[in-house]
Amino acid sequence: MKINLDRYRIRPGKRPDLKRRASADTQGLDEKGDADSVEEQLAEYRDRLADLQERLYAERKQSLLVVLQAMDAAGKDSTVEHVFGSMNPVNVRVWSFKKPTQKELDHDFLWRVHKQAPGAGYVGVFNRSHYEDVLIVKVHGWADKDAIERRYEHINHFEALLADRGTRVLKIMLHVSKDYQLERFRRRLRKPNKHWKFNPADLTERALWEQYQDAFEIALERTSTKAAPWYVVPSEERWFRNLAISQLLVSTLEEMNPRFPPPDFDPADYPPEAIE
Amino acid sequence: MKINLDRYRIRPGKRPDLKRRASADTQGLDEKGDADSVEEQLAEYRDRLADLQERLYAERKQSLLVVLQAMDAAGKDSTVEHVFGSMNPVNVRVWSFKKPTQKELDHDFLWRVHKQAPGAGYVGVFNRSHYEDVLIVKVHGWADKDAIERRYEHINHFEALLADRGTRVLKIMLHVSKDYQLERFRRRLRKPNKHWKFNPADLTERALWEQYQDAFEIALERTSTKAAPWYVVPSEERWFRNLAISQLLVSTLEEMNPRFPPPDFDPADYPPEAIE
Repeated sequence: MKINLDRYRIRPGKRPDLKRRASADTQGLDEKGDADSVEEQLAEYRDRLADLQERLYAERKQSLLVVLQAMDAAGKDSTVEHVFGSMNPVNVRVWSFKKPTQKELDHDFLWRVHKQAPGAGYVGVFNRSHYEDVLIVKVHGWADKDAIERRYEHINHFEALLADRGTRVLKIMLHVSKDYQLERFRRRLRKPNKHWKFNPADLTERALWEQYQDAFEIALERTSTKAAPWYVVPSEERWFRNLAISQLLVSTLEEMNPRFPPPDFDPADYPPEAIE
Repeated sequence: MKINLDRYRIRPGKRPDLKRRASADTQGLDEKGDADSVEEQLAEYRDRLADLQERLYAERKQSLLVVLQAMDAAGKDSTVEHVFGSMNPVNVRVWSFKKPTQKELDHDFLWRVHKQAPGAGYVGVFNRSHYEDVLIVKVHGWADKDAIERRYEHINHFEALLADRGTRVLKIMLHVSKDYQLERFRRRLRKPNKHWKFNPADLTERALWEQYQDAFEIALERTSTKAAPWYVVPSEERWFRNLAISQLLVSTLEEMNPRFPPPDFDPADYPPEAIE
């Protein structure tokens, strides 16, 4: 059960048309009819990820950074829970970037994210990221146009620096439609236990949907690079989103091909039954 | 299926006799015979933890810090994988403390751990911790006796500070026997894929087993407090260890009783069907 991920990958320098990109695509798979094989496939990915993760940790040379961006209520937290929640927490760290603090604002916009870049052997997950500084900041005009313009280049240089030290950078936009978001907001309002996730300001942002989509398109165009590609993953069908992202993680880690390091002792000197 | 956890709790000021404490205890439960009910119980704990964790995160007032200490190969990594791996990574962070760096040594021994104390809404897991500074450091005499003596008090004051800010501190010693450790070392040597976890220096430490147990007993006696108790969990039967620690997490979080915060808007102003 292979998903064609290439379809979701943004070519460097090519501006995607988000409106024309499916947000509910499942590549012909069907939640009900294929439920068993989806479950099986996810279980297989979990096993492969566990092995790859252990190798990454043991090797201690490379890192993986996954950036999650999306419109509000598109499922970032749910992706963290369901996809990254199936990984071993020993070398996975999730960082949720909220409104910057004064201290963070006293620095360049990459300062706070750089501090949380995953070290060798680790998988870092950014739930929101430095991309907010070319999304919400751009939409609201909180920085001037020239400054925003320069940020795309700063981002590319920053990500190239990470790549140069052995960090694979994988950027995922969880793609949903405006109607879908409305449905999710309504769901939050219907359930008192989800009220904490709702903020009236979310509706103000929602009113700027088109501007956000524009800002996303430009960011994707300008910062999808060979070393740090963007994927626009259809995310309205959550099981499909989980499946697609799991496959992406497995194939990325397989490409990175982490290996158990040679022991720093001669095994011949330590026959298991002879130690005491 | 309730485990009597009180049995594993160390009374403040009382020196435990680790030799007399069972390391393979299962309180009469049987891995094979009770396998189904153990699985069921773990699944129930997972669900309850998911709910408690979400409340903790939403409430954003309290934190939980779990400290894991043990002899080498006793199963710290396995506990992280199997117990904390079943939690939502959005607000769980695991910190593995290794040999201190020069920069860390340039500070007091609590400096590096204090930096990783979990913030409000988070669960922090310390895989090794500041307790190394009264264990390995004491056994090897890397600090003088008076300095070690003062550290127990520093630790208690530090943990009281965390508690005062709303952090529950739960300290767990994974208890195994010397024979069990030997078996685990042999297992690592038998499997080339586990060689990276073995270090000949582990055998030097193993030769100091009694001194380590002594250091543990003193640390437990001096630092098990009402606010930050120590539990000595029998850990040779891994399924039992997982069950016991899961139960401990659930009961601790239930005592903390995190609650969804009141919404910062009036729900009457936002009827779900009226928003757009």
